[in-house]
Amino acid sequence: PTALNLAVIPGDGIGPEVIAEALKVLRAALGDDVELATTQFPFGAGHFLETGKILDDSDLDELKKHDAILLGAVGGDPRDARLKGGIIERGLLLKLRFALDHYVNLRPTTLFPGIDSPLAAPGVVDFVVVREGTEGPYVGNGGAIRVGTPGEVANEVSVNTAFGVERLVRHGFAVAASRPAKKLTLVHKTNVLVFAGSLWQRTVDRVALEFPDIAVDYLHIDAVTIFMVTNPGRFDTIVTDNLFGDIITDLAAAISGGIGLAASGNINPTGEFPSMFEPVHGSAPDIAGQQKADPTAAILSVALLLDHLGQTDASARVSAAVSADLAARGTEFRSTAHIGDAIAASLDKN
Amino acid sequence: PTALNLAVIPGDGIGPEVIAEALKVLRAALGDDVELATTQFPFGAGHFLETGKILDDSDLDELKKHDAILLGAVGGDPRDARLKGGIIERGLLLKLRFALDHYVNLRPTTLFPGIDSPLAAPGVVDFVVVREGTEGPYVGNGGAIRVGTPGEVANEVSVNTAFGVERLVRHGFAVAASRPAKKLTLVHKTNVLVFAGSLWQRTVDRVALEFPDIAVDYLHIDAVTIFMVTNPGRFDTIVTDNLFGDIITDLAAAISGGIGLAASGNINPTGEFPSMFEPVHGSAPDIAGQQKADPTAAILSVALLLDHLGQTDASARVSAAVSADLAARGTEFRSTAHIGDAIAASLDKN
Ligand SMILES: CC(C)[C@H](C(=O)O)[C@@H](O)C(=O)O
Ligand SMILES: CC(C)[C@H](C(=O)O)[C@@H](O)C(=O)O
Repeated sequence: PTALNLAVIPGDGIGPEVIAEALKVLRAALGDDVELATTQFPFGAGHFLETGKILDDSDLDELKKHDAILLGAVGGDPRDARLKGGIIERGLLLKLRFALDHYVNLRPTTLFPGIDSPLAAPGVVDFVVVREGTEGPYVGNGGAIRVGTPGEVANEVSVNTAFGVERLVRHGFAVAASRPAKKLTLVHKTNVLVFAGSLWQRTVDRVALEFPDIAVDYLHIDAVTIFMVTNPGRFDTIVTDNLFGDIITDLAAAISGGIGLAASGNINPTGEFPSMFEPVHGSAPDIAGQQKADPTAAILSVALLLDHLGQTDASARVSAAVSADLAARGTEFRSTAHIGDAIAASLDKN
Repeated sequence: PTALNLAVIPGDGIGPEVIAEALKVLRAALGDDVELATTQFPFGAGHFLETGKILDDSDLDELKKHDAILLGAVGGDPRDARLKGGIIERGLLLKLRFALDHYVNLRPTTLFPGIDSPLAAPGVVDFVVVREGTEGPYVGNGGAIRVGTPGEVANEVSVNTAFGVERLVRHGFAVAASRPAKKLTLVHKTNVLVFAGSLWQRTVDRVALEFPDIAVDYLHIDAVTIFMVTNPGRFDTIVTDNLFGDIITDLAAAISGGIGLAASGNINPTGEFPSMFEPVHGSAPDIAGQQKADPTAAILSVALLLDHLGQTDASARVSAAVSADLAARGTEFRSTAHIGDAIAASLDKN
């Protein structure tokens, strides 16, 4: 494309700061080849508290007109009673993932040279989690009776379909096939969640027959947390459900330098709807507006965005620029803008 | 009691080896004060493959006649098709937890002096997870339709009741009150699992009013995995549901020297049914019968057993003996029996 029509949701807290840097880098990476048009959307906890609105159907229609969405972070003060029960997370973030059919939640993990891990001997860390994004216990299919009484019962239902699991698993195998290690690990809890677990395991077993070059194994979610801290090098491509993917990608971020570096793509592989790219971190209201946030996760999300749009060269240049920046990173404090400027400038030079 | 009537389920793989050492230590700790009677039960994957039996009502009746149960590990070769779908885990381990109403799954985590953590800077690690044991997605309340077809739907239901959550939360506060740090952290995913999350959060808020000395906070399960590797010292008493507790206790074990050291108690606090004590590790069929397994987790489970039975002095002596043994542990290989003998001998001396 010679034009990129991007929807931008800076969001709350540190969201606008990191997005400003991500956009600088995106512009630098695209150069003169691609004309970038951005439309900002005000959605977030702040917008909700001001207007009472989170995200409605007409908003979704507007967003759908774009090639992709870049999101900073959404969410307000966790102690604010008006935001209780994940109203922003569910009404905005999850609503986007569901409405735009982001069934692949792609979360690469790399321990970049020069980055400290909390692990004493991390070894090489380079894997990607292919997390399902539209099913599992995230579907909102719970309920409660006799709320607030001693007879209360509160249920949560994890919904898993052959349709949903197979398309995710197929994407996972395609990702694994594109990587040198050619290894796919299914993560679940098949010894307890037997109905869902059986569907996931059977689907992986069946699709695996079409990918004889890919080594396939299985780990329970509890065992995964052990290997993640004792031998993360054993992972290449992880395929897992929505909730297990949520949990292990935070752990994966933690062992590879923190959520300040963790990027993600909420991807609709069919291209029917725009995909959405966002750092894994939250809005961190405590440090908002202070230029303390690390924009690297947002910038690496731009690399995922470029890759998704077929701008593979530009994507690789952003990743390389981030890697070089991290390797050269000293111990002195650098502001959010300072980091973004440095990375954008290194792209301009090339 | 001047007599302790113990049911022993050595189980599969390394189970019998570690249980032999745990019993040596139990006998040494009890000395002449308490007469120990043990009844061995053959339950496990091996027994199932030989006899077709896992655990029936008459077995449960026999087990109920004992003061407590000591279990090694159950489970066979994971590739054995006859053991698929967690048939032993669910038919034996989970059945015992449910039938004997082990609603508290107590899992202490301590980084003992001299033990290497995979973390570069673990600091002091000393917390306890109070995991719910009889509800959540472990209840077996799932189902599937159109299995094996493109229209398959597989659901798993997490069941949470005011009754079940409150008794666990109350136990959690009692545990927190008994510890110097006096801090309780609720772990859940209240922003997504809103019905169950709300019940857990409201219950903790209400019970907290009765414990003004205890500092209470909340963390999402994903964030917990981050703190577990970046700042485990922030944890004191964690209260959580069955599945989240399963996941974080493996991670907790990993950061504090591995599941070779992780003990657990499946506790029925009312005393209506015998409580069951077991190492967190599995049956490890690959190293079974080779005297390679570390019996420390089983021995620390004996310490939990003694504490539960009111033998607090004996319990403290076992913990201290393990701690001393670990601190003195060199780098040379010691057999399972060697470790058990050393710890038992150090108790005999006192
Ligand atoms: C904010 C929350 C709903 C979200 C999730 O659970 O998916 C977040 O933790 C993430 O990983 O993107
Ligand atoms: C074996 C399995 C069913 C069990 C569980 O999930 O509770 C185990 O992982 C544990 O933590 O004791």
